[in-house]
Amino acid sequence: MTAADLSTVERRLAELGLTVPDVVPPVAAYVPAVRSGSHVYTSGQLPMVAGVMAATGKVGSDVTAEQAKELAATCALNAIAAVKSVIGDLDKVVRVVKVVGFVASVPEFTGQPGVINGASELLGKAFGDAGLHARSAVGVAALPLDASVEVEMIVEVSD
Amino acid sequence: MTAADLSTVERRLAELGLTVPDVVPPVAAYVPAVRSGSHVYTSGQLPMVAGVMAATGKVGSDVTAEQAKELAATCALNAIAAVKSVIGDLDKVVRVVKVVGFVASVPEFTGQPGVINGASELLGKAFGDAGLHARSAVGVAALPLDASVEVEMIVEVSD
Amino acid sequence: MTAADLSTVERRLAELGLTVPDVVPPVAAYVPAVRSGSHVYTSGQLPMVAGVMAATGKVGSDVTAEQAKELAATCALNAIAAVKSVIGDLDKVVRVVKVVGFVASVPEFTGQPGVINGASELLGKAFGDAGLHARSAVGVAALPLDASVEVEMIVEVSD
Repeated sequence: MTAADLSTVERRLAELGLTVPDVVPPVAAYVPAVRSGSHVYTSGQLPMVAGVMAATGKVGSDVTAEQAKELAATCALNAIAAVKSVIGDLDKVVRVVKVVGFVASVPEFTGQPGVINGASELLGKAFGDAGLHARSAVGVAALPLDASVEVEMIVEVSD
Repeated sequence: MTAADLSTVERRLAELGLTVPDVVPPVAAYVPAVRSGSHVYTSGQLPMVAGVMAATGKVGSDVTAEQAKELAATCALNAIAAVKSVIGDLDKVVRVVKVVGFVASVPEFTGQPGVINGASELLGKAFGDAGLHARSAVGVAALPLDASVEVEMIVEVSD
Repeated sequence: MTAADLSTVERRLAELGLTVPDVVPPVAAYVPAVRSGSHVYTSGQLPMVAGVMAATGKVGSDVTAEQAKELAATCALNAIAAVKSVIGDLDKVVRVVKVVGFVASVPEFTGQPGVINGASELLGKAFGDAGLHARSAVGVAALPLDASVEVEMIVEVSD
């Protein structure tokens, strides 16, 4: 595949040294993403890289906020892969509508917005103005497979 | 009512020995589900059976993963009841689009996907291919009325 | 601005002594709300009043359920402001479709529904029948900036 075959989104990511990975297979009885009308809903994405969790543990004890921010970017890249798995061409994304970021947090850690910025900033770089989204960030007790961050999103797509 | 009056969804559930229950009355100032356009959004459903919480407590200490998986199936059945309360005929469900499963977890418990499979598998049995959904599973500090699991979903419906 | 210029929603709030505040600037790289088709998705709203968090800490230890219920109402008012920031006239809201309320909870606190009623009841007063929504309430380990409550919502709007 040549650069000319890539979507604008993927060319922007390539300039950051990033490639949209293969979609992460669900760890259970569901699918990575579903299209319904003009929206794609992704499953919650964990910071898996080539099938391996990039890091595990709670933010605020095992993992720093700075490390968690990078993990959130990895989650967002996997969310982009999940969207690609159902629409093929990422340039069909009209808008990233909503992002929810779950941060596995010790109760004293309250820097969830900074962590999930790792996801939001990557989406901004990948989609430009279309990447600007509504967002919730919350700190949860525990995440699947002891992940530190989980990110899901809803995007609007064209036909 | 004879079997012939049941929706395909309800006949499949009957083969599993399950009946779509009466919708669980909200524990507060909201409604079980809302239809907006071609989607139905359910409220978070607790594992209530005939008005009584089937079990309470945190998964990983008071409740095992295996017990919690069954509770998640009960939540899913209540979510189906919530959908039915607004569309009447469950065969109008075109697709289960998104499921979010919240598991009341001690911080060490990281098996949320296996727990929420209880909901996902029931939806697969009830809706067939239309039951295959995007999903997030997270571990939270506490749930209403000390429930162990809470499940919400979005379904696409036909007119 | 005279009362006649206000939307019905804002007149109802004025009768309660409430004003729709300026939208709370996001604490990170996102926007307060996004419109997609006939829906507006808000970001998670914290109980900020005039730029200051009204209270901080976990419900069940630092903050009582009763205090948290008031904080949830403040979150809902900020969510209304977020919707207004993208549609201008709040009377374009056809229906509050879905509310998710996150309550920063010690593990023993299980009264999340009563807390989030603070948001649900305000929405009922502001929007009347159109304010009746589906809802999930969960107890989480920690929230941004040590907020006690965070509320997000999806509303359906007319053109």
